[in-house]
Amino acid sequence: MIQFADQKQEFTKRPSKIGRRSLSRSISQSSTDSYSSVLLFLCAFLFSASYTDSSDDETSPRDKQQKNSKGNGDFCIKNIKQADFGRREIEIAEQEMPALMALRKRAQGEKPLAGAKVVGCTHITAQTAVLMETLSALGAQCRWAACNIYSTQNEVAAALAEGGFSVFAWKGESEDDFWWCIDRCVNVEGWQPNMILDDGGDLTHWIYKKYPNMFKKIKGIVEESVTGVHRLYQLSKAGKLCVPAMNVNDSVTKQKFDNLYCCRESILDGLKRTTDVMFGGKQVVVCGYGEVGKGCCAALKAMGSIVYVTEIDPICALQACMDGFRLVKLNEVIRQVDIVITCTGNKNVVVREYLDRMKNGCIVCNMGHSNTEIDVASLRTPELTWERVRSQVDHVIWPDGKRIVLLAEGRLLNLSCSTVPTFVLSITATTQALALIELYNAPEGRYKQDVYLLPKKMDEYVASLHLPTFDAHLTELSDEQAKYLGLNKNGPFKPNYYR
Amino acid sequence: MIQFADQKQEFTKRPSKIGRRSLSRSISQSSTDSYSSVLLFLCAFLFSASYTDSSDDETSPRDKQQKNSKGNGDFCIKNIKQADFGRREIEIAEQEMPALMALRKRAQGEKPLAGAKVVGCTHITAQTAVLMETLSALGAQCRWAACNIYSTQNEVAAALAEGGFSVFAWKGESEDDFWWCIDRCVNVEGWQPNMILDDGGDLTHWIYKKYPNMFKKIKGIVEESVTGVHRLYQLSKAGKLCVPAMNVNDSVTKQKFDNLYCCRESILDGLKRTTDVMFGGKQVVVCGYGEVGKGCCAALKAMGSIVYVTEIDPICALQACMDGFRLVKLNEVIRQVDIVITCTGNKNVVVREYLDRMKNGCIVCNMGHSNTEIDVASLRTPELTWERVRSQVDHVIWPDGKRIVLLAEGRLLNLSCSTVPTFVLSITATTQALALIELYNAPEGRYKQDVYLLPKKMDEYVASLHLPTFDAHLTELSDEQAKYLGLNKNGPFKPNYYR
Amino acid sequence: MIQFADQKQEFTKRPSKIGRRSLSRSISQSSTDSYSSVLLFLCAFLFSASYTDSSDDETSPRDKQQKNSKGNGDFCIKNIKQADFGRREIEIAEQEMPALMALRKRAQGEKPLAGAKVVGCTHITAQTAVLMETLSALGAQCRWAACNIYSTQNEVAAALAEGGFSVFAWKGESEDDFWWCIDRCVNVEGWQPNMILDDGGDLTHWIYKKYPNMFKKIKGIVEESVTGVHRLYQLSKAGKLCVPAMNVNDSVTKQKFDNLYCCRESILDGLKRTTDVMFGGKQVVVCGYGEVGKGCCAALKAMGSIVYVTEIDPICALQACMDGFRLVKLNEVIRQVDIVITCTGNKNVVVREYLDRMKNGCIVCNMGHSNTEIDVASLRTPELTWERVRSQVDHVIWPDGKRIVLLAEGRLLNLSCSTVPTFVLSITATTQALALIELYNAPEGRYKQDVYLLPKKMDEYVASLHLPTFDAHLTELSDEQAKYLGLNKNGPFKPNYYR
Amino acid sequence: MIQFADQKQEFTKRPSKIGRRSLSRSISQSSTDSYSSVLLFLCAFLFSASYTDSSDDETSPRDKQQKNSKGNGDFCIKNIKQADFGRREIEIAEQEMPALMALRKRAQGEKPLAGAKVVGCTHITAQTAVLMETLSALGAQCRWAACNIYSTQNEVAAALAEGGFSVFAWKGESEDDFWWCIDRCVNVEGWQPNMILDDGGDLTHWIYKKYPNMFKKIKGIVEESVTGVHRLYQLSKAGKLCVPAMNVNDSVTKQKFDNLYCCRESILDGLKRTTDVMFGGKQVVVCGYGEVGKGCCAALKAMGSIVYVTEIDPICALQACMDGFRLVKLNEVIRQVDIVITCTGNKNVVVREYLDRMKNGCIVCNMGHSNTEIDVASLRTPELTWERVRSQVDHVIWPDGKRIVLLAEGRLLNLSCSTVPTFVLSITATTQALALIELYNAPEGRYKQDVYLLPKKMDEYVASLHLPTFDAHLTELSDEQAKYLGLNKNGPFKPNYYR
Repeated sequence: MIQFADQKQEFTKRPSKIGRRSLSRSISQSSTDSYSSVLLFLCAFLFSASYTDSSDDETSPRDKQQKNSKGNGDFCIKNIKQADFGRREIEIAEQEMPALMALRKRAQGEKPLAGAKVVGCTHITAQTAVLMETLSALGAQCRWAACNIYSTQNEVAAALAEGGFSVFAWKGESEDDFWWCIDRCVNVEGWQPNMILDDGGDLTHWIYKKYPNMFKKIKGIVEESVTGVHRLYQLSKAGKLCVPAMNVNDSVTKQKFDNLYCCRESILDGLKRTTDVMFGGKQVVVCGYGEVGKGCCAALKAMGSIVYVTEIDPICALQACMDGFRLVKLNEVIRQVDIVITCTGNKNVVVREYLDRMKNGCIVCNMGHSNTEIDVASLRTPELTWERVRSQVDHVIWPDGKRIVLLAEGRLLNLSCSTVPTFVLSITATTQALALIELYNAPEGRYKQDVYLLPKKMDEYVASLHLPTFDAHLTELSDEQAKYLGLNKNGPFKPNYYR
Repeated sequence: MIQFADQKQEFTKRPSKIGRRSLSRSISQSSTDSYSSVLLFLCAFLFSASYTDSSDDETSPRDKQQKNSKGNGDFCIKNIKQADFGRREIEIAEQEMPALMALRKRAQGEKPLAGAKVVGCTHITAQTAVLMETLSALGAQCRWAACNIYSTQNEVAAALAEGGFSVFAWKGESEDDFWWCIDRCVNVEGWQPNMILDDGGDLTHWIYKKYPNMFKKIKGIVEESVTGVHRLYQLSKAGKLCVPAMNVNDSVTKQKFDNLYCCRESILDGLKRTTDVMFGGKQVVVCGYGEVGKGCCAALKAMGSIVYVTEIDPICALQACMDGFRLVKLNEVIRQVDIVITCTGNKNVVVREYLDRMKNGCIVCNMGHSNTEIDVASLRTPELTWERVRSQVDHVIWPDGKRIVLLAEGRLLNLSCSTVPTFVLSITATTQALALIELYNAPEGRYKQDVYLLPKKMDEYVASLHLPTFDAHLTELSDEQAKYLGLNKNGPFKPNYYR
Repeated sequence: MIQFADQKQEFTKRPSKIGRRSLSRSISQSSTDSYSSVLLFLCAFLFSASYTDSSDDETSPRDKQQKNSKGNGDFCIKNIKQADFGRREIEIAEQEMPALMALRKRAQGEKPLAGAKVVGCTHITAQTAVLMETLSALGAQCRWAACNIYSTQNEVAAALAEGGFSVFAWKGESEDDFWWCIDRCVNVEGWQPNMILDDGGDLTHWIYKKYPNMFKKIKGIVEESVTGVHRLYQLSKAGKLCVPAMNVNDSVTKQKFDNLYCCRESILDGLKRTTDVMFGGKQVVVCGYGEVGKGCCAALKAMGSIVYVTEIDPICALQACMDGFRLVKLNEVIRQVDIVITCTGNKNVVVREYLDRMKNGCIVCNMGHSNTEIDVASLRTPELTWERVRSQVDHVIWPDGKRIVLLAEGRLLNLSCSTVPTFVLSITATTQALALIELYNAPEGRYKQDVYLLPKKMDEYVASLHLPTFDAHLTELSDEQAKYLGLNKNGPFKPNYYR
Repeated sequence: MIQFADQKQEFTKRPSKIGRRSLSRSISQSSTDSYSSVLLFLCAFLFSASYTDSSDDETSPRDKQQKNSKGNGDFCIKNIKQADFGRREIEIAEQEMPALMALRKRAQGEKPLAGAKVVGCTHITAQTAVLMETLSALGAQCRWAACNIYSTQNEVAAALAEGGFSVFAWKGESEDDFWWCIDRCVNVEGWQPNMILDDGGDLTHWIYKKYPNMFKKIKGIVEESVTGVHRLYQLSKAGKLCVPAMNVNDSVTKQKFDNLYCCRESILDGLKRTTDVMFGGKQVVVCGYGEVGKGCCAALKAMGSIVYVTEIDPICALQACMDGFRLVKLNEVIRQVDIVITCTGNKNVVVREYLDRMKNGCIVCNMGHSNTEIDVASLRTPELTWERVRSQVDHVIWPDGKRIVLLAEGRLLNLSCSTVPTFVLSITATTQALALIELYNAPEGRYKQDVYLLPKKMDEYVASLHLPTFDAHLTELSDEQAKYLGLNKNGPFKPNYYR
């Protein structure tokens, strides 16, 4: 049914997932091309950096006998003794994920996931733990592996194991460990998953490859990453997708938040943490005026920078004009600007020719897409000297002494050099939970063997669950008004094409 | 083919178009529910208010012998002697409509409308004249009537007649005059239109009713107003639309400008001109956080007002939160706010109960839709006194002396009390011209008997024609980049669903 | 004691006050160089423009027998029958002058102006009436003349006369009337003023000239205008000032509001009302980055304009940079900008050379000082054509057809083309009242024969009286905190040099 | 001449300077009450944290034989071998201190400090090195000690020693070392200082105490810190100041930058680095609306927070209103806000009562003054649990589980948790250099034995030297304009009381 070999080849060709398999690579090099899928990873990294006990013994978890305090041993983690510490981390995360907590509360009567057997493969962090325990509260049974060999918070895994979850993950897995953990999740005597929650598509791939028959019982796949969604669309196109799949990555709420609002904050944070630059009076050029560019421009303008914009699309260009930014070509301002930021989704936007003409001290960074926007490779030439002055900060020095300050080697600034608020992770996790509920409870025939976006109404529900955080009070339509507008009082309020 | 009687009934039931037929109604009462279609009207009104010679003789134009300086008499206007004055008005407008002027220039070689016979029915203003003369430069022959009995700038009509255009329109037509003028445009010996440019649908209606056979030669209809577009969709639904029609009203560029950016400016202008209120420190509640609400909120926040937002849609609500506005229910703040602005597109948003609870001096106005948002009728009760303190400004006085300042009797503030920049009119006019070109030149089969939106690429072209106004320089994709993005170098750059 | 002749000469040399004496001059030409002193004037003009009955008979008020309904005839106004209408105007103004109303309330027990005999010479408007009736409520007797031959609201004067005030003023006085009215205020049998409230210095000048002995009983002068203050400082310098004088014009509260906050709003209002220009995307150069310039820049930036600043002072220049404006020399941007705004307080900032280089359609206006900033005279040359296109709007046309849009012939834009919120007038009027109270009640010796600024504490009191308008709640220092800061709990909180 | 014992006692009572003397205290506890004086310290700390070699040997520098490559041994530092590394640090700093570099260039011809013998006691960082080498280029001889036992960048000290400067300083001095170093600077055979550059007043104090006769040759003191300035004013008041002193701390340029513009950026940076909080939609109360509060409010509003303000001063309160912030008392909003920021300069603004009422997760921090604003001591009670969750971040936990997030234990957030741009340090260093030049060259009698502010003209000069950083072009007055304004073409442009 599935061409195993081909698939394998295709998957491993994707450079963005290679990093995971090699312990020797630095953390930043393993960043993938998916902004969203890396959020949890990053968060994990930051927390674990502070908390992980570096003196852990070196025995592989696979070789240890493991049992939690109730005698349950159906898990494989680093160290069950860290469970208390992990529990506190989870509790802190709970405070900032009000929507999941609300879901738990609303589901106390009914159990919309009763009977659901969810196998998951995501970053294993405190935020994921809040999601898993929510799924459990909604009635689901869960088995879980990590989607990244680095990103597991060992103490959180311990707390989950202690709480009775079958978790197979630790920080620093080998590639062999990675697949072993996934296999332990699905290959269980007397238990067969009926839902998949995936981040990157590896779990889905493994089941396709090893246990294709399992799909007969599976009601659906929920996928969060750009990479995983891309794989699903390929399967669908090829006619090989055999269950419905929900594309969580492109839901409105998530896109709006990740792109506009988060970038508005993280551009400032990323620049400050790396360079301590003062924004006031600085001349900045932002390449691209999509949602990411809009967020960057708004923040820098607000901090007193003078911002120029480049665009290829006349409509976005006109928006930039109306928003008060001079629309230029890069070569018109490249000599004078203090900071260059790329947000185009394109490649080779900042090429060597421009880098040669920048003034001394110019900061260059990428907020857009992957690491293609700045032609970093063109800077690896003998006449230029690289100096690593801080983590994620390189000075590239020209023969005449001119220095360019290159951040994160052209990878995504906000993933590499700033943090992501739990509030954003909360939106994603809530969307994942709702997608599972929707797919699990959908009547026969609502979803076919295709990739779906979350219905607009669910998007609106996710949004509504996050309003209490802001003490925000939604107005309700009267019957008369709803009729006048031709809307259901409970939504959806937006057309499906809205984003 | 067309049910004449039914149609007539349906059309005349629309209250928004009635005003046009009754000279005794005040100008503001004749405002229709279409923001866009009234722009030209308003502009006309403002200009003509200043310039029109009030001592014109009272003979009906229909009873006069009229000839221009070249002896041509195929027109009917007020006074050909005003042609010079009208020419200056047109020249001033040309300066602010660079996109049309650019179209003329680009079309010097080719004549994309060669052979086109356009019959038009729009507001007849300097801006329309620039459009008509552009169509002519592109190769078209034009005959034109007014879509509103008040909005004709007589001096502009004179200049057009002097220039050889067959114009049938004057300020202050009777209803009989109105239809007579339209008929004179289409019922011509030896000339039959092949394109329709309509604003409100009356011209289209007339041809359907009187000369249905004419549609055999007509290649398409371009319609600009909400009302007219609504009629076209009804015809299409009923299977009675017999040519392709282009919905100009809903093109991206127009919507984005009219709603977000224009409202950002006109909310301030409308409030100042009517009330001279100081914005700094004022508490304002804006009902609705769509594009119009976003524009109003941004402007008032920037001027130092404290802005609250009400919303029914959780996604817009979350945007309001992230943009820094407290999301409330109207009853939570109604006692404390200084200004109430409706932008919902809904009805009865501000009802008597709220009006009763407002504080003394509270200003109430509508930026949204028609005149339904504020329940003005509920204020027409015996215990309340109305005082007209300025044009468009009423004090409604409660028995205890409390005064509410009601603007434009709840009709659209920016149409009634502020002006519309020519720049916005330019976008609309350019879109109309391009729509005519597209429909006229489209290969057989591209458009069926349906209502279409302008292709995204044309939207982008309209935008690009307006960039020189801002001295804005668009970047061009390299071949390599275009390939990488999977886009054509010349666009379209946005998916069709984008708005 | 006073050198009558010299003084006279000196005074009449001031060109800014000449306009008042010539009925044939247009209202705008009589604008003086004092922003503040003209506020009331303007307001009067606007209101009277709408309300004044143009069919008033032509008999001079001086020739009429006048009596109010109680038989009192000690006044001279246009038409006592307009008293009811004027009363309503006053009542509306009361609503927006909460500080004066609060003063009345607080003074119900004590009468801090008991025994005060105030002679006043100001614009006579609804706002002034609220001030006069407040002074009366505080215990003062008042006699009043107008400081401008145009600015009297006849209906307000009628209401004041009906209410028992001795008012001598009407719209359209001759110069002879002007001085006659002033004389009637001071030259009274059995009544001698002990306080002067002046706006422009003419009343003070008249008493110096005609009744110098009157100063023996006068406790002080309160002066509001730049012109009047300038005269007082000259008297003081010359050793001729024989009573204490309070400079209300330079009080902190007033300056801060007039300059920064009002200009932030009035620049937008003035430009819109005259030109309907769209701000979004426009390139603007603001000359001068003092408080006025800061207000203009902030507003235009917020509306989406791209703003450049010119400055001579490095500190303001650095502020402009940090606030996100490019600091340029005028000649660097003069070819590309759409709008030029002067706010320097200087002369010949925009000279013919720059005007020659502006692009077609460029708008030029002055927000700064008098009419010296733009060299308008240089445009009165034969090769340039002037076209008055609207009130206060001229097109100046170059031989090649280029048009410059000159607003208010270079006079202050916000005085000529926009309104001033009553809230600002309220601050001035409250300050005047407090200054009178302070001078009247000051113990012997606190004030010498000099010009004083209002004590900081009074400034703070004026501010505090305006906070309730915003429902603003001030925090009070605890005893411990006051001691820690070395401040009195009730202020003053700022050093005297603060502004 | 000086009461040695008393002075000593008084000085050591100042708790803010104690930290320096005790190696066992954490770095953050040694923060002093002077924002400015700690800037260099902080910077030093940050840089040295990354670069300092922790494997340095433990021999005290005082016990080592030290010589630079030229055989000069008149210095005492940690390790001369680090000189190359230090030189690079200095070169990087030079790039961001354009004003000092400009001073060097302008002084190539004249040597305004020729003959000056400057003894200095400041933080020894790359920025200070740029200052010292500038003084040297201007003709001065320098001897230097550290004003803080922690803040010395050893590699910079090495580079200075290698360059021929007599530097006596290393990171981690004991208190005895501290005074020994100072003494080595002043107690030199055949060299006597004639200028003092001090930061904190310890050097000045030492000379007063030990070598009072030295003041006979000293032309002046330049002092930078709040603490040191306070001591100087005390001496002056007591009639014991025997040379002129320049208060650099209160110069306009420095105040404006440190307070408004830097805080605008550092409030965001400090909050993000410690808590990763998302600003959008958060409710924040800012206590105090002086320059610091204005900066904080502007930044948070721009990032989409809803900001409330508390104030005691009606004028600042009215400004807050006009700027669009609701003015409240703390108790009105304390239950609902997400973040509390103090900027009052006062004490006990946030007391236990308020802390008790904050909601779970509320962040509390201080941007104002010292560590007095938040009553942190009141949180040290048995029922509350403190958890250190990150560096500078404590969770204080109430018995019911509520957590307050307390930053930097109530000390200054931006000093503890964010960085200071070199640009700001540049302004301070330039001002110090100019103050030395002014005092050294002032004609006899211009300055008496008092504390002076830098003349306004020098402030303006400092500002002008920083304009090229922004590519900012200042306009110059014409002779005619200067005359009109009554100003010198080269300034000063502001009255002396301006700030």
